[in-house]
Amino acid sequence: MAKHKVGIVGASGYTGSELVRLLTHHPDVTLEFVTSESYTGKKITDIHPHFQDLVDITLVSIDDVHEYEPDLVFLALPHGVSMNFVKEHGLDDFIIIDLSGDFRFSSQSVYEKWYKKDHVSAEYMEQSVYGLPELFRDKIRNAQLIANPGCYPTSAILALAPLIKQGYINPSSIVVDSKSGVTGAGAKPKEGLHFPDVFGNFSAYSLVNHRHTPEIEHTLLNYSGYTTEVLFTPHLLPIDRGILTTTYSTPKKEVNKEMVEELFHSVYEKEHFVRVFDSPPSLKNIRGSNYCDIHAAYDERTHKIITISTIDNLVKGAAGQAVQNMNIVFGLIESTGLKQIPLNP
Amino acid sequence: MAKHKVGIVGASGYTGSELVRLLTHHPDVTLEFVTSESYTGKKITDIHPHFQDLVDITLVSIDDVHEYEPDLVFLALPHGVSMNFVKEHGLDDFIIIDLSGDFRFSSQSVYEKWYKKDHVSAEYMEQSVYGLPELFRDKIRNAQLIANPGCYPTSAILALAPLIKQGYINPSSIVVDSKSGVTGAGAKPKEGLHFPDVFGNFSAYSLVNHRHTPEIEHTLLNYSGYTTEVLFTPHLLPIDRGILTTTYSTPKKEVNKEMVEELFHSVYEKEHFVRVFDSPPSLKNIRGSNYCDIHAAYDERTHKIITISTIDNLVKGAAGQAVQNMNIVFGLIESTGLKQIPLNP
Amino acid sequence: MAKHKVGIVGASGYTGSELVRLLTHHPDVTLEFVTSESYTGKKITDIHPHFQDLVDITLVSIDDVHEYEPDLVFLALPHGVSMNFVKEHGLDDFIIIDLSGDFRFSSQSVYEKWYKKDHVSAEYMEQSVYGLPELFRDKIRNAQLIANPGCYPTSAILALAPLIKQGYINPSSIVVDSKSGVTGAGAKPKEGLHFPDVFGNFSAYSLVNHRHTPEIEHTLLNYSGYTTEVLFTPHLLPIDRGILTTTYSTPKKEVNKEMVEELFHSVYEKEHFVRVFDSPPSLKNIRGSNYCDIHAAYDERTHKIITISTIDNLVKGAAGQAVQNMNIVFGLIESTGLKQIPLNP
Amino acid sequence: MAKHKVGIVGASGYTGSELVRLLTHHPDVTLEFVTSESYTGKKITDIHPHFQDLVDITLVSIDDVHEYEPDLVFLALPHGVSMNFVKEHGLDDFIIIDLSGDFRFSSQSVYEKWYKKDHVSAEYMEQSVYGLPELFRDKIRNAQLIANPGCYPTSAILALAPLIKQGYINPSSIVVDSKSGVTGAGAKPKEGLHFPDVFGNFSAYSLVNHRHTPEIEHTLLNYSGYTTEVLFTPHLLPIDRGILTTTYSTPKKEVNKEMVEELFHSVYEKEHFVRVFDSPPSLKNIRGSNYCDIHAAYDERTHKIITISTIDNLVKGAAGQAVQNMNIVFGLIESTGLKQIPLNP
Repeated sequence: MAKHKVGIVGASGYTGSELVRLLTHHPDVTLEFVTSESYTGKKITDIHPHFQDLVDITLVSIDDVHEYEPDLVFLALPHGVSMNFVKEHGLDDFIIIDLSGDFRFSSQSVYEKWYKKDHVSAEYMEQSVYGLPELFRDKIRNAQLIANPGCYPTSAILALAPLIKQGYINPSSIVVDSKSGVTGAGAKPKEGLHFPDVFGNFSAYSLVNHRHTPEIEHTLLNYSGYTTEVLFTPHLLPIDRGILTTTYSTPKKEVNKEMVEELFHSVYEKEHFVRVFDSPPSLKNIRGSNYCDIHAAYDERTHKIITISTIDNLVKGAAGQAVQNMNIVFGLIESTGLKQIPLNP
Repeated sequence: MAKHKVGIVGASGYTGSELVRLLTHHPDVTLEFVTSESYTGKKITDIHPHFQDLVDITLVSIDDVHEYEPDLVFLALPHGVSMNFVKEHGLDDFIIIDLSGDFRFSSQSVYEKWYKKDHVSAEYMEQSVYGLPELFRDKIRNAQLIANPGCYPTSAILALAPLIKQGYINPSSIVVDSKSGVTGAGAKPKEGLHFPDVFGNFSAYSLVNHRHTPEIEHTLLNYSGYTTEVLFTPHLLPIDRGILTTTYSTPKKEVNKEMVEELFHSVYEKEHFVRVFDSPPSLKNIRGSNYCDIHAAYDERTHKIITISTIDNLVKGAAGQAVQNMNIVFGLIESTGLKQIPLNP
Repeated sequence: MAKHKVGIVGASGYTGSELVRLLTHHPDVTLEFVTSESYTGKKITDIHPHFQDLVDITLVSIDDVHEYEPDLVFLALPHGVSMNFVKEHGLDDFIIIDLSGDFRFSSQSVYEKWYKKDHVSAEYMEQSVYGLPELFRDKIRNAQLIANPGCYPTSAILALAPLIKQGYINPSSIVVDSKSGVTGAGAKPKEGLHFPDVFGNFSAYSLVNHRHTPEIEHTLLNYSGYTTEVLFTPHLLPIDRGILTTTYSTPKKEVNKEMVEELFHSVYEKEHFVRVFDSPPSLKNIRGSNYCDIHAAYDERTHKIITISTIDNLVKGAAGQAVQNMNIVFGLIESTGLKQIPLNP
Repeated sequence: MAKHKVGIVGASGYTGSELVRLLTHHPDVTLEFVTSESYTGKKITDIHPHFQDLVDITLVSIDDVHEYEPDLVFLALPHGVSMNFVKEHGLDDFIIIDLSGDFRFSSQSVYEKWYKKDHVSAEYMEQSVYGLPELFRDKIRNAQLIANPGCYPTSAILALAPLIKQGYINPSSIVVDSKSGVTGAGAKPKEGLHFPDVFGNFSAYSLVNHRHTPEIEHTLLNYSGYTTEVLFTPHLLPIDRGILTTTYSTPKKEVNKEMVEELFHSVYEKEHFVRVFDSPPSLKNIRGSNYCDIHAAYDERTHKIITISTIDNLVKGAAGQAVQNMNIVFGLIESTGLKQIPLNP
């Protein structure tokens, strides 16, 4: 079988380099091109020296994408930039998997409210499919435009979806307390992410107004039919990779420990990339891999359901999930090229 | 004025060494002795070389305490060991500030249930005063036995007390999501706290059954008269010092952002060691100091109150608060010897 | 072609778990067994939960090794324990790759002096081959007993071997200043490796008497014929994985920057796992991979040659190099199963 | 006695904020002003929130310095900027302690070669005194312009000075292998110092051409009369604070372990801020304090002398040493206001 031809638009960020890492050894695709406007003509190893001797790619301009006649293009671009690419290229020539937030909503006004910018290609928002395979696999299979989920939402939604869908919890009782490594904030040096600012430190940020809030609510609604109210609080962990999300919610029917645990085991039994644990998971058990580990508990004393879920924000929270989506849309086995074993210790 | 004579029982742990750090330059007390059974006769610098040239103390046995005729003794002992000391020495000869959990409850049965051991000197539990100065200053002044609060409870209670006392929140709606550095787990090497186990890692532990849960509930009840139900989830941060606690609760009356912020400003206006911030605090702003920094917010969308509070678990969460209690009981200015400026970066 | 049958003796340490990680997806071998005396009968995921859903192995006893009729056995045992296994099993039934220090010397007296214990199977020391493929590939091909190199020596020898062999440097002028992550010290919690002891800290240890000193000297002599005097100083880095070694030596002939750089490029041109860089390498560029990155420089002002080399101590410094040796001894392509791309960031 | 009036020029960097930390509780000086051009009119707590409730300073412009009639001014400015201040203000009105590199050399050409910029006030270079109190206390006492030493040089020179001055070592044999925390590179976010670039990482930089090389050589010459050749290699530690320097040199006369140890004990016996240890020191033992800890060893096998020295780069390597110099020039007890006990763990 001829290999599928894919390309990456945007090489300098973390999602770009992780896509390269994952696609380099993928058996069923060839990585035809990687673009970078700032580094056009340079080797990818000039930006990412860890690929030395492993990846021999000369970066090209975004203007040259069509020359390669790709079957699929990954957009590893900042929020607000992907929409321009889609506007220019449309969806007829190749499938697009966009790793930014530009097509995660079906509502233009919601996007514009939370992202604080105009959407230039809103006409494509409706066609876009939210690329969380465990929830929307069937739609992804036939999508031309896939909006790859945000990292925080991936960790929160996989933990909450079974509870909300099965009517276990009160949709307006949900608290999501997330903790993320610094790569979630991007590769560009900035105030507050300078090494001495983060080392030995910890803090919450974007209280009550983080734009992943509507993404979580919107997706839970689409999946379950329930309108939820989610209070989402992100915190910055002094590590490079990984998100751990703790959720709290109130049951709306009588439950017990066993029911809650059993729910997760049954919902995710056949999922390759969700592992249900009987004790709280820890970040290093998924480092570098596409797994989401989940533990669910019920506190009889206070009548609350707690979930803990972990992902590598750059893999299941970005590049790995994008490749998983690509596998689905190409009709490949979903775990192809995603068998990296977590790096622990 | 003659200086007060104090001693420390237990030198090898972190609270012991932090007490030495804080008392060494305290202007109104003399540190008469430090005990250690494993290191009797050795120099304190043999265990804690950072005191070289600064602290010249030869460790003595716990059996020699009486020889020094102390006015006050700090017990920096493990849970379950302090009670033996109190049983043996009683409270007639010197004031005791106990940094373990042994005297934090007035109920023997609650202690025995959560700490899973018999209490050998339960007769003293009623006399003990919970040493959180901001809440119980008047009782502390006349105490003979002060139970120094746990680190997690200090961070949670200072954030919740104003809300619960003033009737702002529903007492059964409280979620406490705490994140602590590793020194909170003690100085003894153990499985799970080995450097490679924690580095780059993050996890929750003791879900639904951590013994700081009843300490928080018990104290909030004593202070406010309200019986609360607290769901407390601790997490292990890959850093050495510091606790950040995020709480979530539901208002029981109509509130707004300004009311919530104003409440904290007014309650803590005159407190030396509580700083109320208008944005989320970060751990390094209190490192090495006796401060508790608090930010409170209200989310209009989901109708929830959020607080973020930070302490250095070894200072305001242990040794610093113990010295603050000592200052009160000796009638000194409460901040004496506690003016260390946070070490940031 | 039938797959080769291999087994691992010793599951609980880091080298054991890294061998499992690397062998799980190796296309030409089957991992027949993993032993553990403390966890016999348990699942490997009980010790290493990151293998959940990926590795389904029930641990067996070391006494059962023969039942599996392996072609090759990896010994992931502490120093002083491997020798007992070799004594008991000999070398007739299967090839042994020993990851301990027990067979790295040909001289029993050198071993006993530096390891401070009697060698119980010294008769096998002469047959053992030092498993550094870049230097001793031909001998490894036919070995029955391979002594997998120490982590520090791997990083130092690969940097020094070209210089000493080609007569560039004075053999008695060598200083090796190494810095290692904490996994190099093993998985067992101990004093000094407790998280708060290492976090934010840095120190040198084992000055002038670390047992990797004679291993470096012994190997350089075997390879080059020159007797060297190496001053080796290890330091403990507050990270989990990785060794960076800086060496300093004095040229014994006239050299310049270009000659020194060119030497390394030419010597390692065809080596899959050595990458020669024109600027100083950094640890994260090799994390999780089997690469050794090297940069060599010459300081005209002080007439000294400097090298900087980096490895992942658990991969090229242990399990990865062991698999590389296995590939050689099985006649496979040397990089088979070792194509993991470094995990960066 | 009236307090001395001092001011700080430059508030936004780490040395500025550490000066504020140390001077706030200094008993014999008043901090009259702190300048910042970018934050003029703002509170210092707007930049450094850890000073909340502790330091109430409104930042002023550098143009207002004279209004305060200070006795002494600290320049916490970047290299190349201090010289302008000195040019403009001269040395008649107040003593200047400059924490940049602008006045550390007496030779204009050496400065211009290594710092790659013209010196605009070279006429003051000769008057400047190198502010390393342990070596040049007498000159400091009467200085009008004190060049506060670089952080790396402080750690290296204190370790090498006794050896070179007493003729123990060959002056052209010196290797200095230093490892520094990231605060040494300043507070400004930049490429390579972004948190994920440094976390879990380690690397060498500025091989053979770091400008602290001539500072070390120049100072050793001034102090000992010996012209040295120093090969200096800095490395970036993934921590916030602290420098550990390992030096290697060859004896030029017969020495032994005892002689080497004894030399350091006798030279530094009366020094308040140098602690000589009989085992290798570790960084956390000096964190936040003005100490330099030193261990010296002799390797009989390879005939080399090794020293390990540690400082907090922001204290003894910058702000603390500046205050120590201030105490000397004001005739105060040298340790006044510098009694902070190291923060460990």
